Amino acid sequence: MDVERDDAAAARIRLEDVAREAGVAPSTASRAFTRPDRVNFQTVERVMDAAARLGYRREPPRAAASPAASSRAVNLLVQDLANPFFADLLKGAVSQARSAGYLVTLGDAEESATMERTHLERLTGDANGVVAAARWTSDAELREMARRRPLVLFNREVAGISSVVAGDADSSRHLIEHLHALGHRKIVYCAGPHNAWSNVLRQKAQDEVAQALGIELITTGPFKPLIGQGAAAAALAWARKPTAIIGYNDQLAVGILRHLISNGVDVPRDVSVAGYDNTYGSDFVHSGLTCVDAPVEQAGRAAVDLLLARMAGERTVHQLRLASGLQVRGSTGPASTSPSSAPILSAVRR
Amino acid sequence: MDVERDDAAAARIRLEDVAREAGVAPSTASRAFTRPDRVNFQTVERVMDAAARLGYRREPPRAAASPAASSRAVNLLVQDLANPFFADLLKGAVSQARSAGYLVTLGDAEESATMERTHLERLTGDANGVVAAARWTSDAELREMARRRPLVLFNREVAGISSVVAGDADSSRHLIEHLHALGHRKIVYCAGPHNAWSNVLRQKAQDEVAQALGIELITTGPFKPLIGQGAAAAALAWARKPTAIIGYNDQLAVGILRHLISNGVDVPRDVSVAGYDNTYGSDFVHSGLTCVDAPVEQAGRAAVDLLLARMAGERTVHQLRLASGLQVRGSTGPASTSPSSAPILSAVRR
Repeated sequence: MDVERDDAAAARIRLEDVAREAGVAPSTASRAFTRPDRVNFQTVERVMDAAARLGYRREPPRAAASPAASSRAVNLLVQDLANPFFADLLKGAVSQARSAGYLVTLGDAEESATMERTHLERLTGDANGVVAAARWTSDAELREMARRRPLVLFNREVAGISSVVAGDADSSRHLIEHLHALGHRKIVYCAGPHNAWSNVLRQKAQDEVAQALGIELITTGPFKPLIGQGAAAAALAWARKPTAIIGYNDQLAVGILRHLISNGVDVPRDVSVAGYDNTYGSDFVHSGLTCVDAPVEQAGRAAVDLLLARMAGERTVHQLRLASGLQVRGSTGPASTSPSSAPILSAVRR
Repeated sequence: MDVERDDAAAARIRLEDVAREAGVAPSTASRAFTRPDRVNFQTVERVMDAAARLGYRREPPRAAASPAASSRAVNLLVQDLANPFFADLLKGAVSQARSAGYLVTLGDAEESATMERTHLERLTGDANGVVAAARWTSDAELREMARRRPLVLFNREVAGISSVVAGDADSSRHLIEHLHALGHRKIVYCAGPHNAWSNVLRQKAQDEVAQALGIELITTGPFKPLIGQGAAAAALAWARKPTAIIGYNDQLAVGILRHLISNGVDVPRDVSVAGYDNTYGSDFVHSGLTCVDAPVEQAGRAAVDLLLARMAGERTVHQLRLASGLQVRGSTGPASTSPSSAPILSAVRR
């Protein structure tokens, strides 16, 4: 089986020969290649073994017909590959790129300025184009990169560069209005990283709506967008005696929720908690986390679309903000009428 | 700013010129490029704007020094990019590849035989090498691919092909022993897809230990490895009146746990639930899910290591099974002494 085969000889072997060798009908042999899930596993094995013995080579699928096509790639830079928020972005980007005949290459900034810079410079030095969830690189640097290579930003807007933001100001408005309707008049927002553009968008939109509705909205932080930051955020927020707490993203909100509950706080009776993004797990943490349902997978597809258009010569700058809804779950409820009598967190007591 | 610049002129601009233009010390200008997180944001902007005005070009970082280096890529095929289990694999693979000067390109099989096949053929037709979480492709086909391109399998073993499995038979033994120590003598295993190699490994190891310990271990399924399959799995498992239920992976186990609890079953008083992999969210679902803690990120690094060695000419086949521990959380407890009197699921009642 390890002997080098004559490709010309292999080319003469037809599917019918494989079927005969395997002792199955040609249609079964064909299905073993194209829809193996529809064929008995042992039969697939038998057909594949026969194909290997005869040196049968299938025609490559159409997508790989042009050798150039398979080496075309777009690049995607995310902040943290282990964050399920970015898994949704990947899903959308890979799916859209594939349908255009492109592969996706990955960069992981690991929430580090140095890593982000190295990746962007390396990617822009080689790639056809880049979709970047860039946080540490300045506007001026990004503009310089965009002059050298097609670049589309994710969840960040910079004048002169195309971008896709998963969520808009309306989603922040809906979240505040939801809490207002439940009677909340004092809310703490646990902010994300100061260099996260979406944090600025959320904070600004929330502040405007809160002011219009007569809600006292206090900002604490910044916090890293990680579950592990929830304890610190919860303690700081709780000390301000709010009836509701909003986390910059679902991971921070999940951390806040867990810390409150493990310290004897009843959510949502004592305090409501909400987040952003509807990341994996938001539905099954305790009685569910109310959050803005960001269309992250859709944003991944849109970003690749914009990038491919740019790579094809499109010069217009598009800045998309995708509409997002509100996912109401068990973590928000009517405002506590006696927030000051609620139990005190051990983290605060110390 | 959009005017094409003379590269030779740009090359004559030094960092000192940028610093002077920006009105900062050369050391500050340097830091703005290399460690922008250590510099005031406005200062970084000023330096970058000055650099853009002067047409200053930084030396590319060392990793990108060779034009060939940046185009080197290894490929990774996963079953479902939206599954956070694979996010950990990606994290490890991307990190290890980068330290060797490689990028990672991605394929998403979307739990489909056709997609897996198309990706593998396309990837192997182009890439330097492939790490594949292949489930639908037969052993014979994988061996044929491995003859054409360096190939390393993830969570599957095929004779003649190097592979990395995140977890070993010991981890299944620990899980059964843990339940045995809590008094469980009748356990239902909700199996994963019949073509998931790790499902076969888990089932075989569990059966051996259960038999040795005198535990009745019933297998139901197969089920897709998704949270949404939990309701079906829970109903089938519950009907067998076990004191413990094991899911093929954490997502199935999370689905089982949620369905039981939403139907009034007290976990772990009425029944214990456990899973595999320690995927994101296992710690915060209800009182936490007991599970085998699979070293998935480590497996991603090891798989890329094996692949790079193979690409460098290594001929030996390595089949690694990485040891995994047991993460005990709130979903397992002493066996119910009256399992038959436990509440009946509405799904079963219908």
